[in-house]
Amino acid sequence: MSSPSWLDPEELPEVTALSEEECWSALSSARVGRLAVTAEDGADIYPVNFIVKDGNLFFRTAPGSKLMAIAHSPAVAMEADGTKLLHRWSVVVRGEAQRLSDEAEIVAAGIDSLDTMTTSEKWNYVRITPTSVTGRSFHR
Amino acid sequence: MSSPSWLDPEELPEVTALSEEECWSALSSARVGRLAVTAEDGADIYPVNFIVKDGNLFFRTAPGSKLMAIAHSPAVAMEADGTKLLHRWSVVVRGEAQRLSDEAEIVAAGIDSLDTMTTSEKWNYVRITPTSVTGRSFHR
Repeated sequence: MSSPSWLDPEELPEVTALSEEECWSALSSARVGRLAVTAEDGADIYPVNFIVKDGNLFFRTAPGSKLMAIAHSPAVAMEADGTKLLHRWSVVVRGEAQRLSDEAEIVAAGIDSLDTMTTSEKWNYVRITPTSVTGRSFHR
Repeated sequence: MSSPSWLDPEELPEVTALSEEECWSALSSARVGRLAVTAEDGADIYPVNFIVKDGNLFFRTAPGSKLMAIAHSPAVAMEADGTKLLHRWSVVVRGEAQRLSDEAEIVAAGIDSLDTMTTSEKWNYVRITPTSVTGRSFHR
């Protein structure tokens, strides 16, 4: 582990910022993100699958610590990253997370149809309404 | 994006927990992590390079938003993930972040010798002292 810190314009002037359109394009290509939340005892982080729909992020979760953290503090952040041609990209969405209680919203978002390997889970669906979207690209 | 949520035992019973020894072995093989912090306006997340030394994590950062968030709330979380044989793994370290002010500590950690592509940055070095280390493995 001797490479310089990664994708951080505070550390690497060679990093270039992505436009908001580029951020959304990259997010839509991502399979997984990392959800940062504020739990009662500090920051925590979870890998989650998510989808992008109409400018919002959606994910689902069984009842548990993620949902409790979101209820405690709805201001969350989601990071996703990947590669495109010779660049690595990373996008961070900060926003307000809200558990969906309206079945019509859940169906409209398309998250009710995500494949699942489990059959008996009681899913909860969460929408993140973005307050900021930032991204950067780094030449590999 | 139609795969089930990833690496989350709340969602996938097929996920197996890693032992603490396995977690540290995996962390030591990682090149990059995602640092979750609590900023004044909510959760935030940063990709960072880190090293493991004597049971602690170390990273460095230029002055900026990460350092301000850590000063505001030292209880942070670092996630790293990767692949090993037919499995994907993800490890989350939660702990207390502290900016190092003692040059001897910085040298002892080995982070002063990380390569850098920049020459004029004034680096700050941060240690995360773990309070919990959890990991999981998921058959691809």
